Amino acid sequence: MSIAEWSCGKFLDETFSKAPAPGGGGVAAMVGGLGTALAGMVCNLTAGKKKYAAYEADIARITDEARKMMDELTALIDKDAENFVPLSKVYGLPANTDEEKKIKQEKMQAALLVAISAPIEIMKIAYKAIKLHEELVEKGSTLAVSDVGCGVICLKAAMECGWLNVKINLKSITDAAYVEKTRAELSAMLADGEKLCDDIYNRVAAKLD
Amino acid sequence: MSIAEWSCGKFLDETFSKAPAPGGGGVAAMVGGLGTALAGMVCNLTAGKKKYAAYEADIARITDEARKMMDELTALIDKDAENFVPLSKVYGLPANTDEEKKIKQEKMQAALLVAISAPIEIMKIAYKAIKLHEELVEKGSTLAVSDVGCGVICLKAAMECGWLNVKINLKSITDAAYVEKTRAELSAMLADGEKLCDDIYNRVAAKLD
Repeated sequence: MSIAEWSCGKFLDETFSKAPAPGGGGVAAMVGGLGTALAGMVCNLTAGKKKYAAYEADIARITDEARKMMDELTALIDKDAENFVPLSKVYGLPANTDEEKKIKQEKMQAALLVAISAPIEIMKIAYKAIKLHEELVEKGSTLAVSDVGCGVICLKAAMECGWLNVKINLKSITDAAYVEKTRAELSAMLADGEKLCDDIYNRVAAKLD
Repeated sequence: MSIAEWSCGKFLDETFSKAPAPGGGGVAAMVGGLGTALAGMVCNLTAGKKKYAAYEADIARITDEARKMMDELTALIDKDAENFVPLSKVYGLPANTDEEKKIKQEKMQAALLVAISAPIEIMKIAYKAIKLHEELVEKGSTLAVSDVGCGVICLKAAMECGWLNVKINLKSITDAAYVEKTRAELSAMLADGEKLCDDIYNRVAAKLD
């Protein structure tokens, strides 16, 4: 059963528990999903309105893109949970002899590269989704402008939660070139995404004054 | 049926749609719920560990408080949806004569005070929940420190989404004394909550470097 089929109450309860998933990574994907859902909602409240007829094609495109990103983020809730399994198994391996230590370290490194992949994907999709809201500030119904604001708040949160989960894995990865490249690429994307979100949030908040 | 009984997929789909709920308010409550769930998770990963025995009573108290707040936020998903009903009905009232306009305006004002109450509550509970994470940075298992970070990110997002939904209602409320008092009280609480979250996030991020 996909985690997306769980009730919201069960998702919260399982997160609350000591079960390995959902944790911060699954929450990041869910919060990102909520941010894309709000983009879809703004589109659906805009489509067909005379006042926004000039944007009809854009709104249809943004609707499709938001739906695709929402589906991808939903799938990443499960992916993040599955990707943690190899790492959790490695923790249990023996490390009494040098040979055992070597094997454990090798398996650990492989498992870390699996575990880090979902939060990286979550960050990238959330970043793309922020740009949908950037369009919606102008093209979306002004009646739903607070939802554009809530959307970018959720997507910024998804990027930041993803980033913490990237960082916790990077900390144990020994491939220095991979670590440096990943850290540089994602921290730059995060900074840009955060700035975009703050700009959009401030524009929305000003419209509500 | 309570919205918390919906599957996560349905929650996302209904948000995506043009249905009046869940919207930004329901999303705020859900994201806040995820932030309290992560506080509970950190507690559950800390309880019973020798290294944190000194904090056992604190962790038990924080667990109970996080659970209570999570339940309150979950209930607020429904409450926010219900509270929008009177306002949506007022929009449909006629306003052709002065008498109709007067009645519509009076009912509108009453409905706005109902609609604003859930996002105010969400902000207040999220603010209290941030303080649980403030304790958990020190008292929670260091293995779960990224989840403390994700927790405050979610709670900051819940406060900010709540605030946009407060603002959109305040904009139409004509009772100037109420507007001024509410704006002053909540904007101060928001600023304090955001600062707390940023401090905690930075402490967590530094621990992951």
